[in-house]
Amino acid sequence: MRASPRRAAGPLDASNSAGARWRTLSADSVRLDGGLLARRQAVNRDAALPHGWRMLDEAGNFENFRVAAGRSRGSYRGPVYMDSDVYKWIEAASFQLPECPSSGLAAAVDEAIDDIEAAQQADGYLNSYYTAAQPGRRWTDLALGHELYCAGHLFQAAVAHHRGTGSSRLLSIACRFADHIDATFGPARRPATPGHPEVEMALVELYRETGERRYLNVAGFFIDQRGHGRLGPNPLFNSSAYFQDRVPVREASEFEGHAVRALYLATGVADMYLESGEQALLDALKRQWQDLISHKLYVTGGIGSRHHAGAFGQPYELPNELASCETCAAVASLMWCWRMLLITGQACFADLWERTFYNAVLAGVSLDGTRYFYLNPLADNGAEEHLHRGGPRRKPWHAVACCPPNVMRIVASLAHYVATADADGLQIHQFGPARVAADAGRGGPVVLRMAGDYPWDGRVRVTVEQAGGAVWVLSLRRPAWAEQVAVRVNGVPIDAAPAPNGYQQIERAWRPGDAVELELAMAPRLVEGHPWIESTRGCIAIERGPLVYCLEQADHAAPIYDLELDPGAPLTTHWRPDLLEGVAVVCAAGYQIDRSRWAGRLYRPFETGSALSRRRTELTAIPYYAWANRGSNAMRVWLPHA
Amino acid sequence: MRASPRRAAGPLDASNSAGARWRTLSADSVRLDGGLLARRQAVNRDAALPHGWRMLDEAGNFENFRVAAGRSRGSYRGPVYMDSDVYKWIEAASFQLPECPSSGLAAAVDEAIDDIEAAQQADGYLNSYYTAAQPGRRWTDLALGHELYCAGHLFQAAVAHHRGTGSSRLLSIACRFADHIDATFGPARRPATPGHPEVEMALVELYRETGERRYLNVAGFFIDQRGHGRLGPNPLFNSSAYFQDRVPVREASEFEGHAVRALYLATGVADMYLESGEQALLDALKRQWQDLISHKLYVTGGIGSRHHAGAFGQPYELPNELASCETCAAVASLMWCWRMLLITGQACFADLWERTFYNAVLAGVSLDGTRYFYLNPLADNGAEEHLHRGGPRRKPWHAVACCPPNVMRIVASLAHYVATADADGLQIHQFGPARVAADAGRGGPVVLRMAGDYPWDGRVRVTVEQAGGAVWVLSLRRPAWAEQVAVRVNGVPIDAAPAPNGYQQIERAWRPGDAVELELAMAPRLVEGHPWIESTRGCIAIERGPLVYCLEQADHAAPIYDLELDPGAPLTTHWRPDLLEGVAVVCAAGYQIDRSRWAGRLYRPFETGSALSRRRTELTAIPYYAWANRGSNAMRVWLPHA
Repeated sequence: MRASPRRAAGPLDASNSAGARWRTLSADSVRLDGGLLARRQAVNRDAALPHGWRMLDEAGNFENFRVAAGRSRGSYRGPVYMDSDVYKWIEAASFQLPECPSSGLAAAVDEAIDDIEAAQQADGYLNSYYTAAQPGRRWTDLALGHELYCAGHLFQAAVAHHRGTGSSRLLSIACRFADHIDATFGPARRPATPGHPEVEMALVELYRETGERRYLNVAGFFIDQRGHGRLGPNPLFNSSAYFQDRVPVREASEFEGHAVRALYLATGVADMYLESGEQALLDALKRQWQDLISHKLYVTGGIGSRHHAGAFGQPYELPNELASCETCAAVASLMWCWRMLLITGQACFADLWERTFYNAVLAGVSLDGTRYFYLNPLADNGAEEHLHRGGPRRKPWHAVACCPPNVMRIVASLAHYVATADADGLQIHQFGPARVAADAGRGGPVVLRMAGDYPWDGRVRVTVEQAGGAVWVLSLRRPAWAEQVAVRVNGVPIDAAPAPNGYQQIERAWRPGDAVELELAMAPRLVEGHPWIESTRGCIAIERGPLVYCLEQADHAAPIYDLELDPGAPLTTHWRPDLLEGVAVVCAAGYQIDRSRWAGRLYRPFETGSALSRRRTELTAIPYYAWANRGSNAMRVWLPHA
Repeated sequence: MRASPRRAAGPLDASNSAGARWRTLSADSVRLDGGLLARRQAVNRDAALPHGWRMLDEAGNFENFRVAAGRSRGSYRGPVYMDSDVYKWIEAASFQLPECPSSGLAAAVDEAIDDIEAAQQADGYLNSYYTAAQPGRRWTDLALGHELYCAGHLFQAAVAHHRGTGSSRLLSIACRFADHIDATFGPARRPATPGHPEVEMALVELYRETGERRYLNVAGFFIDQRGHGRLGPNPLFNSSAYFQDRVPVREASEFEGHAVRALYLATGVADMYLESGEQALLDALKRQWQDLISHKLYVTGGIGSRHHAGAFGQPYELPNELASCETCAAVASLMWCWRMLLITGQACFADLWERTFYNAVLAGVSLDGTRYFYLNPLADNGAEEHLHRGGPRRKPWHAVACCPPNVMRIVASLAHYVATADADGLQIHQFGPARVAADAGRGGPVVLRMAGDYPWDGRVRVTVEQAGGAVWVLSLRRPAWAEQVAVRVNGVPIDAAPAPNGYQQIERAWRPGDAVELELAMAPRLVEGHPWIESTRGCIAIERGPLVYCLEQADHAAPIYDLELDPGAPLTTHWRPDLLEGVAVVCAAGYQIDRSRWAGRLYRPFETGSALSRRRTELTAIPYYAWANRGSNAMRVWLPHA
């Protein structure tokens, strides 16, 4: 372990990674202050994290460690990966602890670490399920046992806790387990293909935090092991592709199998590239990116087309009601996009980060922070028995509770994803009121303040508070969704052509008080899907800024499944401070079809639109992230066009 | 067993069933002579049945019986239900044997019965898998062991063999096994919920053939056992609904779970109603019918929306590429529709029989009778790797080979489904050149000849050759698809109003030479799907007569996934004697879209149709049943409308 104290960093510290074009900033560099992101983060801190602790406590997650430690006479409860939920919750809490070091949260984290520490075996092994419920059967089911998956989440929690509190206590536990894993698996030792990727990215980060190269090596070993079908087919999926074990990592040309696993693996591979710079890894990731954006991405940024298997489907297989779009898969996509952004410096990755966060991730948690979606379909007919009697409804917790703490850790670390730096200056990726204080390369230490009412308003104002000492480059992402962009420096419009990487680059000798204004066109937009997608054919969706919109039954008297949108009618935006904690709704016009003519049949002679009996009606669309906060009701993103 | 010799009957002998409004005819009553049905039947007899024997021989199905009998030292091969494939093949062959009693087919059947007889245990038990591979484990896995399923197919084969040959040999084997089952299961003995329905309908038919009421009783016992979740969830499906074990039969309100299982069960329940007349059974079946036609039916008549589980989906969940539409499910639907027709006398069931046979079943076998589909999706992008590397392509045989012999037995028994009789006369349900000689109730023995070029031409001519002795009613189905129907008797148009049951009823004192002409409008039609179906939205399909049409890549230079149909352009029909053994193609006009504008993206700003760059093109549609007879290529039934 490195002897010197290190600057606090966020979940990823790529400040010294050879493969990073842009450096991550230290955790105290960016502070969100106001706006939607800060609001979501406050709810996460004040409501979601305490709620999560209660749910973990009720579900037996903490108790499992005490059972494994022999401190309790109870029995292990829950699925095999219960430990990971605790680790993700600790990771989330650790990102918040610098703000509230002496809170009840800190005490709760310390208690949890007590339990974890007690459950660790003398040889470093740590897993409450195998210790308490399957003694003697360690590492016997790498496909489904999730020991390495839980280990990975421990390592990430430990790194975050170390960074957030300065305490080495959980980090020491993690290193003992990592040493045990290193001593168990490897080319000269035992082969292993982890059934659920996660340990790869975590070992790389543990290496970054401790400087211990063995951790990097064993991560590389796990990555190299994949792709030989050792994990066999999963019952839900007739191929080892489910486990990303059909094709070696360097030969991958598509995303396949379980979406969370696929993106966790890609994240680990990106981490490995960041440290090794091995081109074959990056080439494979770029092929997978092309596959994703060309074939397998929902308009929300969600991924995973197969409800039952949580898996990628065929190209263009993107059903709405039966989407998987697991919240965890969206979180995984954020982690991967972030690394791809650091590696390539291309705005497309920050664009997808933004689309995914505001839509696929934020939708996963209720506005009050205490109810969660596992799946995030793009349509829901509102029937009580939808999707096998109890499908996508928000729940306080889940039997498989991976998603809630995953949302908690990403929301708690939002500031991490706002900005980066390189030798030439600073880059701003995500918008919203914030203070950014960082080392701007040749500019030296600078302080910027970002203001505006993003994502509701498209004007982003960046004011220089501390200017730095030289000419340096301020880069502002120009979102691909923005059909018009205006840029002003100190009120004077400048040539608004973006750099090839999709950023607005402004190079000057900055002075305190200098202000850059980015004005992104915020008119609501209609989008359509590729003609090969069955589920979007004949339909359009509404977007505004980075937000995807939907119709929800709560805003309509007519059944929303009977509504069509008239694409020729104007779309208007209205700020509704009273609604869903304040949202801009988009109003449109369309028609309500007469469904009675379909009673008792599925097919009938085709009638052209003009002959249909339908009546004109108004439609009100809300941001997709805010749906299902007014009870269970129908929702749809894609609307047939009249 | 009844002592007196009985008249040969088809697969179902409801000539004495209390619940039958219409009587089935004896097997020699109807002879197909010419036309598409007779052609398919000849191919089935001359190519498919010999091919099936070779495939069964190669796969080890016959050998399995010899292994079980101790006549061979080999090992059991294949899945647990291999016996059923042999039984279905014998059943199919038995329907053909009256035409060729001394052929090689008859010898092959006798040889197979030798093997089966030898494998039967002293106590009557008969299952080559459990006897050869799992001795001592009989009846230990009712959920997935398929012993009762195989037993059912044995009983059906035995009944067909008895009816087709007069030999009691296989029937005796069947009765010994049925006696064993009766002695094993029952209210006072062992409970049992068969994991795959089939034995129910088979036991009822065995009762009809032998008069042994115990067989009917044990069928009723199996039906009554269902619906208590004893079979638990299947790994492919998170509910006992997969096995139709979630809801008791009399409480069912929908079709759910594995589609073949669901329809085999419904068939057995209908058989039980035919014998018992218990209203609660029929009420449940009628509710399921409403669910089917309102929510879960493909336009081809295919059923089963979930590719992986072969299961029904949610209401309106009817994906095209990922349809299941297993050929066996369509065969099951035919069996069920036929019974519902006999029970109710309503044309809607014969209509669905027709739609399902011509489209969902006929598509399941190649024109030459030697290559089979397991799944029958409504679209296929033609990619080699479609649907997990090797999905819906015609194959000579399948590892799970249920479908090929199921097609064989239904095609071999087509004549059975053409006509029925009641006290008032005769009913004609399916059209095509045929001779019908039957007892027309109060009309006495009559002979009719049906002529025409159905399904290509809509004129069906029925000539009375032997008139019978009294005034009686000739009923001709008026297909629901026919937008206009003209009826002439001896050239004179008559009032063409159908009876409430959907049939044209003509009551008169018939004389030899009388001719009825039914003229069904055969113009190609455009149909649309219910607006709640994701996969048909914005699309139309072409139908003509009872046939659903599709585009196939072989007829087009442009990728057919890029074609749109102009619903305003005229549709024209052309008879192509050279194509696909002779088909009427439907030509249409539409557009080829410019897909290059979508390169590398799935979503883009909406553009109205007029602004799209697309070019006018011609489309040629072929009958769906004939697709995939010119190699693997893309196909789609539902076409976006321009």
